[in-house]
Amino acid sequence: MTDLAERVETAIASVLARGGFTPLHEPRFAGNEWAYVKECIDTGWVSSAGKFVDRFEQDLATYTGAAHAIAVANGTAALHVALQLAGVRAGDEVLVPALTFAATASAVAFCGATPHFVDSEERTLGLDPIALRRHLEAVADSSKGACVHRRTGRPIRAIVPMHTFGHPVALDDVLAVARDFDLAVVEDAAESLGSLYRGRHTGTFGLLGTLSFNGNKTVTTGGGGAILTNDPGLAKRAKHITTTAKVPHRWEYFHDEVGYNYRLPNLNAALGCAQLEQLPGFIESKRRLYQCYAGAFATVPEVTVFAEPEGSRSNYWLQTLLLGEESAAERDSVLARTNDVGYMTRPAWTLLNRLPMYEGCPRAALAVAESLARRIINVPSSAGLV
Amino acid sequence: MTDLAERVETAIASVLARGGFTPLHEPRFAGNEWAYVKECIDTGWVSSAGKFVDRFEQDLATYTGAAHAIAVANGTAALHVALQLAGVRAGDEVLVPALTFAATASAVAFCGATPHFVDSEERTLGLDPIALRRHLEAVADSSKGACVHRRTGRPIRAIVPMHTFGHPVALDDVLAVARDFDLAVVEDAAESLGSLYRGRHTGTFGLLGTLSFNGNKTVTTGGGGAILTNDPGLAKRAKHITTTAKVPHRWEYFHDEVGYNYRLPNLNAALGCAQLEQLPGFIESKRRLYQCYAGAFATVPEVTVFAEPEGSRSNYWLQTLLLGEESAAERDSVLARTNDVGYMTRPAWTLLNRLPMYEGCPRAALAVAESLARRIINVPSSAGLV
Repeated sequence: MTDLAERVETAIASVLARGGFTPLHEPRFAGNEWAYVKECIDTGWVSSAGKFVDRFEQDLATYTGAAHAIAVANGTAALHVALQLAGVRAGDEVLVPALTFAATASAVAFCGATPHFVDSEERTLGLDPIALRRHLEAVADSSKGACVHRRTGRPIRAIVPMHTFGHPVALDDVLAVARDFDLAVVEDAAESLGSLYRGRHTGTFGLLGTLSFNGNKTVTTGGGGAILTNDPGLAKRAKHITTTAKVPHRWEYFHDEVGYNYRLPNLNAALGCAQLEQLPGFIESKRRLYQCYAGAFATVPEVTVFAEPEGSRSNYWLQTLLLGEESAAERDSVLARTNDVGYMTRPAWTLLNRLPMYEGCPRAALAVAESLARRIINVPSSAGLV
Repeated sequence: MTDLAERVETAIASVLARGGFTPLHEPRFAGNEWAYVKECIDTGWVSSAGKFVDRFEQDLATYTGAAHAIAVANGTAALHVALQLAGVRAGDEVLVPALTFAATASAVAFCGATPHFVDSEERTLGLDPIALRRHLEAVADSSKGACVHRRTGRPIRAIVPMHTFGHPVALDDVLAVARDFDLAVVEDAAESLGSLYRGRHTGTFGLLGTLSFNGNKTVTTGGGGAILTNDPGLAKRAKHITTTAKVPHRWEYFHDEVGYNYRLPNLNAALGCAQLEQLPGFIESKRRLYQCYAGAFATVPEVTVFAEPEGSRSNYWLQTLLLGEESAAERDSVLARTNDVGYMTRPAWTLLNRLPMYEGCPRAALAVAESLARRIINVPSSAGLV
């Protein structure tokens, strides 16, 4: 049998059937992008307010079923503000998966809080609620409406499930743990626009949820993000503190708290409106791509193409090859060969507890996350590939 | 004599000679904006990297004469990172004018530091270095390379001169105070792109300087900003921590510190490149507008049209009427009448020490800032009006 890297390359080639360089995920602008962006330039409305910002927020609320959507500069900004609105304060701890992009923990750090890393499960690639419950039972005291980490004495204020590569976390169980331990839930749905859990959009189950429209996401605004919530008071606060906390007045400049300049420019929102119109088609294409990869890799026994968890409908943001544990040592040769021939592939993120700034942070046992980090390879995933 | 509000309206009307609504400052897109933005959409390069980001940074460096320019999401982000790179840490104090936009102090707060408000001078509308020296002599101890506020015991780490409405602060004297009291200088040049002090561009005198390209600025990227510095090490650090602190690698995701997602999207940088090409023309137009207002108000003795300070060449970002102290009580009737008839005008910002979140912050005597805040009215100032 030829080596694994070669067989992975062959399987990818049988799906993509095109030469040259294939990015991991590139945007697709096949709709009204130019018309809407041109309108911004022609009217001069390119900046921090404008009709496309209002429309983008309305379109996001309609699409996700959230009562309110607040457009912001990017997904990190969305998560920073959502955590603050969920009550996270300096000196708190926040439960986050070790297997996630750096921004999940950065947003915690921006609040002056400490990430507390927990394990993931292979079934969803996301936070494992059973392991989490076991961990909290062992390390935390929950009473009088607050959860305290016994060893550090710090309040554990919130939990941030992240829907990895678009696949929904086991939200029912996560919400049950949060309820039992008095934790606020802020969903990091940066990767899961269009992904449903039991028929309902991810990011709408927690107190707040956040989206990202970075250039590598399913839809893009260049850079952008949004906060979702069903709570009108939180929505109002979110809009206020992401727009410099200026109190509306005909001419006075009065700000009633320290606010952020996290506004999404109208120019970027215009791109987002055009992209959202095409989202259903993008997701169909990405779901077809999964079927193609699954078929192509059926003859590669070392590799499982990751499938959406039961009860979920995933956007398949990034297609994921999961190597068997016995093939994990070949991950880097697969990455090298596929990138060498022009298929852009990448491993999972370095587990956040292994980054120097988080080395001293509290953490649960992370055996599954460690294993997944050794075995994940993302392969080209753009909408429109098949 | 008719009332002041009516005479101000008449003087403005004699300059602008156009009906309808005249915004305070609107962008002007008369160059390559379409071409560059369309190129981003056509090539798919809209997001956090791309040739327009590189070009915009190079164009900014060339135009300002700074050795390095780092494009970021907005002026607030630029100032936040510049302060951090200047050594501002939680528990420090930072000297900022009370008469400035809220972002100058927000950026200090984002570092966990406390703004320490100082007075402005009528000659420049900016920080008064003579009053500052007197204040520091009275309240601070400076020895062993550090300045300490005696009453609070906190280090006073930096000073942030802001070039109000585009008019350069008395930088020579500010730099002398900074040197004598061991303070880092971070110039908030958000309003002064194109303004020169003794022939050199504002924002290039301090350790770091910051620019803004918000929609109301002389040139706009929708939302955007930049950090200027002549120090190659600081420039490298600025780029690193504004782009999530990811260590470059072919496929690994490894971040070596808590970084920010403060990237300027390529889409917005494209707009900026086109705008910068037109900046010299914008400034000529804005300087002509000053001459027109100065002429029109020559017959209104209660009003001085603010002129660039000696030794400076200003971009005249916002044209400024300065009422005599005896006419300050009529400010609001002037604002109401001009806005009523469609000329958008506004007063100065509420002094920052009067905002609830900064009420307890240390401050110097602020007599001049208080007076200026009562007397300033900004009038329509867009490039292309005359």
